[in-house]
Amino acid sequence: MEPFLTEFTVEWGDCDEAGIVFYPNYFYWLDCTFQRLLRARGLGQRQTRDRFGAVTPLLDVALRFRAPVRYDEVLRIEARIAEWQERRFRIGYTLTSGERLIAEGHELRAWAVQTDDGLKGAPIAEEFRRLLE
Amino acid sequence: MEPFLTEFTVEWGDCDEAGIVFYPNYFYWLDCTFQRLLRARGLGQRQTRDRFGAVTPLLDVALRFRAPVRYDEVLRIEARIAEWQERRFRIGYTLTSGERLIAEGHELRAWAVQTDDGLKGAPIAEEFRRLLE
Amino acid sequence: MEPFLTEFTVEWGDCDEAGIVFYPNYFYWLDCTFQRLLRARGLGQRQTRDRFGAVTPLLDVALRFRAPVRYDEVLRIEARIAEWQERRFRIGYTLTSGERLIAEGHELRAWAVQTDDGLKGAPIAEEFRRLLE
Amino acid sequence: MEPFLTEFTVEWGDCDEAGIVFYPNYFYWLDCTFQRLLRARGLGQRQTRDRFGAVTPLLDVALRFRAPVRYDEVLRIEARIAEWQERRFRIGYTLTSGERLIAEGHELRAWAVQTDDGLKGAPIAEEFRRLLE
Repeated sequence: MEPFLTEFTVEWGDCDEAGIVFYPNYFYWLDCTFQRLLRARGLGQRQTRDRFGAVTPLLDVALRFRAPVRYDEVLRIEARIAEWQERRFRIGYTLTSGERLIAEGHELRAWAVQTDDGLKGAPIAEEFRRLLE
Repeated sequence: MEPFLTEFTVEWGDCDEAGIVFYPNYFYWLDCTFQRLLRARGLGQRQTRDRFGAVTPLLDVALRFRAPVRYDEVLRIEARIAEWQERRFRIGYTLTSGERLIAEGHELRAWAVQTDDGLKGAPIAEEFRRLLE
Repeated sequence: MEPFLTEFTVEWGDCDEAGIVFYPNYFYWLDCTFQRLLRARGLGQRQTRDRFGAVTPLLDVALRFRAPVRYDEVLRIEARIAEWQERRFRIGYTLTSGERLIAEGHELRAWAVQTDDGLKGAPIAEEFRRLLE
Repeated sequence: MEPFLTEFTVEWGDCDEAGIVFYPNYFYWLDCTFQRLLRARGLGQRQTRDRFGAVTPLLDVALRFRAPVRYDEVLRIEARIAEWQERRFRIGYTLTSGERLIAEGHELRAWAVQTDDGLKGAPIAEEFRRLLE
């Protein structure tokens, strides 16, 4: 797929006493990016639940930081599905601000469907995959 | 009722570039305090929904700030039900750190029950009121 | 002055278990709006400190809630300086989503200059006021 | 060193619409844990800056999730310095709630000192290392 691109303005309240982004906020933006990517394909959390009875729980997440950002800078996040497994998919993220590389990372998410016994991992629905490819 | 007391440690990430608490965090702590007060009476959000079919939506909220707090300080919040109306109740909050008054404020909350047409304001359940008095 | 307008997309992570915005987030957006208003006039926090040696600490803040918003909705915030006092100014906020009024409120902020004894309240700089009017 | 232990109560506002912790909050708690560990050794951010002219910027961070937590649960985080390099150190984190393993992860942090040209990586101060071992 084409990488999905979205932007966030770094706000005063996103920064810590050192004047740089307090790092947990980067994960807020990663999650927002994933949600925006889904919505851009007509697959918000509610749509995914309604159409497939499925959710996409996070299995692991990691970020490597290259440079800090400060408030009033624009953070640009590029997301692409980096890997499809039968029951999991990996989203790769690249964060930049202007010409600077800020961070790189990924989320690994599972496909899980609602059963009488709670959520269960399952093969990813073909249609979901096609819409994200 | 006896005032309800609870404490929070101000963390590094709660502060902004000026080195003082980024103010929206105070409202996070107010909400935590209200939830902890309810839980101390056996009335968590889920219990309140299960026992009374009710929720307590926020109608208005205000804080007046007297002094800043910095990271690693302990913020102590005292909550008391300041006023009962038929369908609403007001929680008063006093925030201190050591001997210093940090802020004062309130939340005004409604009593709302789930109906076929969605949430509707209703008279506060007697039992709920008794448990909080 | 013309009201200042800005927008925020309500994200998945901004909502609580009830599916509506967790209310402290509204104050994050109020603060963002104030900071964006200042920046639109060339008066970011750093510029204000550099040009005037001043900061604008929050004295009180209040919001009245009219209707909830859910994720993926766009929150539109209108800000205007509602009152100038010699040492204080009040910013009025109106929050809407589509045609719906979501909340109304204000921030009261002081003008404070850095002195050898710390921050001291002072008359608002004429130029600051002119840039915001 | 002995592992460092600290606890957090999961609050209503920490959870998303699915009723489980919104994941960026875990990183807030990791950072809090690191800061609390430093403070327990007399090494808050300000002390570290004052004594060593140094800060400990984050290079990378990762978490693997094993089970969700819900509001009103107590999250227990164990931290230990898992590796010392000349200019970097790795903190390992284990998150549990009751008997359940919730998540495991690490932060890799650098040692950086303030120079005329800005922050520069440098060998970790012996005293800092000794206090954390």
